[in-house]
Amino acid sequence: MILLNDEPHLASPDTGAPLYERLAEHYRRVIASGTLAPGDRMPSVRALMSQHRVSLSTAIQVFRRLEDGGWLQARPRAGYFVRRAPASKLATVAEPEIPALAEPARYVGLHERISRVIERAQAFPDALNLGGATGDAALYPTERLQALASRILRHRPTLLTEVGEDGGAGELRQAVAKRALSTGVTVSPDDVLVTSGGVEAVNLALRAVAQPGDTIAVESPAFFGLLQILESLGLRALEIPTSPTTGLSLEALDIALTACPDIKALVVVPNLQNPLGCVMPDARKAELVQLCVHRGIALIEDEPYRELIESAEPARPLKAWDRDGGVIYCASLNKVLAPGMRLGWMSSGRWHARVRLLKFAQTRNNESLAQFVAAEFIGSGAYDRHLHRLREKLRVQREASADAIGRYFPAGTRLSLPPGGLLLWVELPDGKSSDALFEAALPHGIRIAPGSIFSNSERFRSFIRLSCPGPFDDRMDAALRQLGRLAGEIG
Amino acid sequence: MILLNDEPHLASPDTGAPLYERLAEHYRRVIASGTLAPGDRMPSVRALMSQHRVSLSTAIQVFRRLEDGGWLQARPRAGYFVRRAPASKLATVAEPEIPALAEPARYVGLHERISRVIERAQAFPDALNLGGATGDAALYPTERLQALASRILRHRPTLLTEVGEDGGAGELRQAVAKRALSTGVTVSPDDVLVTSGGVEAVNLALRAVAQPGDTIAVESPAFFGLLQILESLGLRALEIPTSPTTGLSLEALDIALTACPDIKALVVVPNLQNPLGCVMPDARKAELVQLCVHRGIALIEDEPYRELIESAEPARPLKAWDRDGGVIYCASLNKVLAPGMRLGWMSSGRWHARVRLLKFAQTRNNESLAQFVAAEFIGSGAYDRHLHRLREKLRVQREASADAIGRYFPAGTRLSLPPGGLLLWVELPDGKSSDALFEAALPHGIRIAPGSIFSNSERFRSFIRLSCPGPFDDRMDAALRQLGRLAGEIG
Repeated sequence: MILLNDEPHLASPDTGAPLYERLAEHYRRVIASGTLAPGDRMPSVRALMSQHRVSLSTAIQVFRRLEDGGWLQARPRAGYFVRRAPASKLATVAEPEIPALAEPARYVGLHERISRVIERAQAFPDALNLGGATGDAALYPTERLQALASRILRHRPTLLTEVGEDGGAGELRQAVAKRALSTGVTVSPDDVLVTSGGVEAVNLALRAVAQPGDTIAVESPAFFGLLQILESLGLRALEIPTSPTTGLSLEALDIALTACPDIKALVVVPNLQNPLGCVMPDARKAELVQLCVHRGIALIEDEPYRELIESAEPARPLKAWDRDGGVIYCASLNKVLAPGMRLGWMSSGRWHARVRLLKFAQTRNNESLAQFVAAEFIGSGAYDRHLHRLREKLRVQREASADAIGRYFPAGTRLSLPPGGLLLWVELPDGKSSDALFEAALPHGIRIAPGSIFSNSERFRSFIRLSCPGPFDDRMDAALRQLGRLAGEIG
Repeated sequence: MILLNDEPHLASPDTGAPLYERLAEHYRRVIASGTLAPGDRMPSVRALMSQHRVSLSTAIQVFRRLEDGGWLQARPRAGYFVRRAPASKLATVAEPEIPALAEPARYVGLHERISRVIERAQAFPDALNLGGATGDAALYPTERLQALASRILRHRPTLLTEVGEDGGAGELRQAVAKRALSTGVTVSPDDVLVTSGGVEAVNLALRAVAQPGDTIAVESPAFFGLLQILESLGLRALEIPTSPTTGLSLEALDIALTACPDIKALVVVPNLQNPLGCVMPDARKAELVQLCVHRGIALIEDEPYRELIESAEPARPLKAWDRDGGVIYCASLNKVLAPGMRLGWMSSGRWHARVRLLKFAQTRNNESLAQFVAAEFIGSGAYDRHLHRLREKLRVQREASADAIGRYFPAGTRLSLPPGGLLLWVELPDGKSSDALFEAALPHGIRIAPGSIFSNSERFRSFIRLSCPGPFDDRMDAALRQLGRLAGEIG
């Protein structure tokens, strides 16, 4: 057994993170520093309890966090082992500062900036796209879905020529409601509304709870698509600092709600936040739901990525803690099942009737065929087998990319490696401009997402979001080497 | 040659309708009265010119109106013949009064009423649905589309698992742009945005030109779905009287625009208006586009039914007269090709960039497969052959239903038989309540659309919209007989 530092140093600096999170971070550093090497056995739960004078449940949460993050691997009847070398030697992205005063809410004016970025990128159509958030088609069950679609069309030929069911095909509503049960979310198929991807779900949720001019609290950084929705609806955004490890800062949210009592809703991605990749710990999820109930604001949960998380048990949505219908749950099948089918679904709690009207008046019911294909696939064992393979492929791609960034990027680069998905959030050193890197990379055939599009502020101008959409091959290695070189050169 | 009354009586009463329309109405009465019987030859164009002292172009427009309405049939090198007995002996629905003062614009509060109607109807799930606006699947090319879908999936297996093209599949945008050319509409594929049915197109158009609280001019009666869109967007409706023969009253529109100069847009269905079934004459279309340009209001054209019109040449959209990008053209493939595929498209003139943002932030791109199926079908000769069969089937269903209404409904019932589609707009005599008829019919297994849901006013409480979704069989005959009997009984 190796020596571990004693409890006191763990408590400082007090980042506001819960004890188990601070302990987990301690062990991440121990592993990253090489003190515990890949293959080494971790101290036991009992050892942790006595060493750090923590409860059984705290110790267990430490192990779960480390396992979720891919640092440890459980071997039946043998305990926990360090799974791998740290992906690169990079330090993790710093925790955000929590200002004592909330920022003012501001109308979003990002669409033009985002359009310019997209337009510039389109001038280089052959570029390797590391700026997207969707994986290659090869990650998804193409042949299986194709065969299913053809078979379903043979059995139900009028799917294309008959009006579909209002609210979505009963088969799909049933399939997703049943699957949600295992994550602690109890919804009936009647509560489920099928949407055109998660984007339409979030759009409908915002329209249901807010009017133009209203203020919505969002994570900072946030998925730029959410900021575009706010802009298109004439809503104001109030950005809440968000930790790259534990997600939205509840402390900052509390400050903001006090300063700005007319906030109508909070939109949050608790599981694999985009772009940070963080997963909010269960205790924080519970606390967040409570806080929103207490403050009387709608909680809109956006869940495109949850099923990509590598963990022993399924991560839970905020909706699992919803007791009074205050959470509008928005899920998407684009990133986990099939990017071309444009399917999402939502369960809108006490806004159900209003959301149904809005959906009916916005796009009516969805196209039918894709819904039947998804329903059958999700209802079968094939979905879990697919997810298992998908997560494993993404893990390999993600870690290889992170390793390469560690090798190629300038000293001082920071990176948070998420416990799932295909997105990496990278901080360039010395305040280097990610807009400049974006521009410099295009002529080299590389497209990235600059941090400037993830906030209405200039806060993330030194960050980039990099995706790992396909296998880590020579092209990817060369692209990251080139990016690293360019990052060294720009100002 | 039969004797026709002289010009003077045609001029009175002066309904404000153009001369050719009054002449056409004159000949409709002549045919309806049996003076000209099915198979009879119509007077020639030259005879009409001298008889009524009208110009060549007016005489030609009279023939075109009568042909569009299905009253006459052109036989090559032989002239025009009366095609059929009038469908029933019913008088046509009266022209609306044009009040000297515009009504005030009002927020729409119809959704609850419509929801109650739908909820009541759902309590009788086995009822024959004459309240919808979509035909049976048998009217559409089910097998051909199914075969196409399976073939396309074999050739492009990743359609389901790859992100689709922004703005819609290039193949579909190209196919609809090419087809629009033949109707006088010149759009490039880049101008086309594929949407989730026509509903999303109209929704996006309204969001692009108006803010909550703004006033939108609409036809009266209007498709209830449009009124729900206005309600869902917090817009006010100003209802403009609309003629069952010539469509929106330009006179009334002019009065309204003068009284209420802050009207932001007009939404109009110029071809086969729902529920009236009228087709706006070309001269009026041109005048309407001019008027909207002159008054500086956006003109939103909704076109779900145009290709169902029976006429020698394709009816033209308002967009054909658009010179400065002031018309937002919204089309749908639901009623003409495949109700289950949920495809529409729009060409947004000078609001193109704004509409693209809104679409991107509302639902992203559409699901891909249906777009490729539609593109291939529309690009082939199969589409015109399908439309030809569809129109013929609908004509037979429509005329048989109108005949039955003439036989079974109480004396004084009025009906306008449209030149295409599957909808009949029926006025009950003596101010009988269509809400009462709706209620009375449900226990008899018949569902109709009461007039009360087609306006924010009580103006159409004695009207019903009846659809002829399938072949006129014994069940349909019995249903209309029952409806007629109930219409006689209610107050």
